[in-house]
Amino acid sequence: MSKPLLQIALDSLSLEKAVADAKAAEKTVDIIEVGTILACAEGMKAVKTLRALHPDHILVCDLKTTDGGAILAKMAFEAGADWLTVSAAAHPATKAACKKVADDFNVANPDLKVKKEIQIEIYGNWTFEDAQEWVDLGVKQAIYHRSRDAELAGKGWTEEDIEKMKKLADLGLELSITGGIVPREIHLFKEITNAKVFIAGRALVGEKGRETAEAIRAEVDKYWK
Amino acid sequence: MSKPLLQIALDSLSLEKAVADAKAAEKTVDIIEVGTILACAEGMKAVKTLRALHPDHILVCDLKTTDGGAILAKMAFEAGADWLTVSAAAHPATKAACKKVADDFNVANPDLKVKKEIQIEIYGNWTFEDAQEWVDLGVKQAIYHRSRDAELAGKGWTEEDIEKMKKLADLGLELSITGGIVPREIHLFKEITNAKVFIAGRALVGEKGRETAEAIRAEVDKYWK
Repeated sequence: MSKPLLQIALDSLSLEKAVADAKAAEKTVDIIEVGTILACAEGMKAVKTLRALHPDHILVCDLKTTDGGAILAKMAFEAGADWLTVSAAAHPATKAACKKVADDFNVANPDLKVKKEIQIEIYGNWTFEDAQEWVDLGVKQAIYHRSRDAELAGKGWTEEDIEKMKKLADLGLELSITGGIVPREIHLFKEITNAKVFIAGRALVGEKGRETAEAIRAEVDKYWK
Repeated sequence: MSKPLLQIALDSLSLEKAVADAKAAEKTVDIIEVGTILACAEGMKAVKTLRALHPDHILVCDLKTTDGGAILAKMAFEAGADWLTVSAAAHPATKAACKKVADDFNVANPDLKVKKEIQIEIYGNWTFEDAQEWVDLGVKQAIYHRSRDAELAGKGWTEEDIEKMKKLADLGLELSITGGIVPREIHLFKEITNAKVFIAGRALVGEKGRETAEAIRAEVDKYWK
């Protein structure tokens, strides 16, 4: 398992702000995410523009796809996204539709530097049987987080969160972890060997963002070899 | 309870197609919906444009809001949406944030012809305890459907669907019903006294759409007085 990567979630209301933030973070992060807010505000133009500006970053499109999977996945991948988020609450047929679009895309484009993948974004009432279904479908990635609104309500990471992440990793899922990621809390996740990505937002922008990223990477170096 | 209304879901990939479809359906429907696909493709420009073109229709923005509730709700309502969909899988804090934005908007604009409302869109694993929480929060509307992908997989309406809808109506929720609505199946929903809206997509476009709408309304007239 390689060391967890760093991802910036761009959640501004305008593409102008998003491209500025992406530029100010490009040397700091491995992955650029068109967040749900940005995608809903600006549409696929946001994905296309960030793809054009950052051809060498992994690009995530965070639609939290809940229905209409085949169309949304095709749209996002064709716009240039490498990875697409799919809501855990989506019907299994929706997840399968998204997965098939990704697989077909990879078969048709064998030279892709980054394979198209879907990431199951964990929201709502879910079970480990559900998670096993995702794995059985061939899904490799899931996203675990405190919701933005739970975070705003001051809810912290709990032992229960960590236990759930460990169980998801045991099923074979690589995890992106998000929801108020700060350097001093990276150690909380040290037992999650399959941690693939830490995601943050404005915390990674600009000069201060570079410092924060360095601090996160220093913590990562302590716990992931 | 008034008779169920008719809503067209615009789910095209371009705003040009969506405005054409909306124009071709405007005399047929009561409610115009910027579907998730259209919203993700074109962003809030789609909501603003359809609001400008159809000032007298109820306008729904189907973001299936799952996180970032306050920002997404403010964005959608300011763009001109009357109703916003919120995923049942969203954290309770997200639902509360969306509801608060709607309430604040209504207080600040007491002369609104159509009050801002959120609609809980039912996806994923949910319970009637969850539904009671939505009601306790002051939510009036929910959306019940076969997922688009389940529909494509040929899954029909079941007795279980109808029973669940009746229980949701018993909790006091007004229901929008969607997922392959056709005139000959309207009778399936006759015991759902709180049915507020039937939603369809391309089936309501153009001359044939007008005929379909008339056939749906004729069925509605049989069962809702």
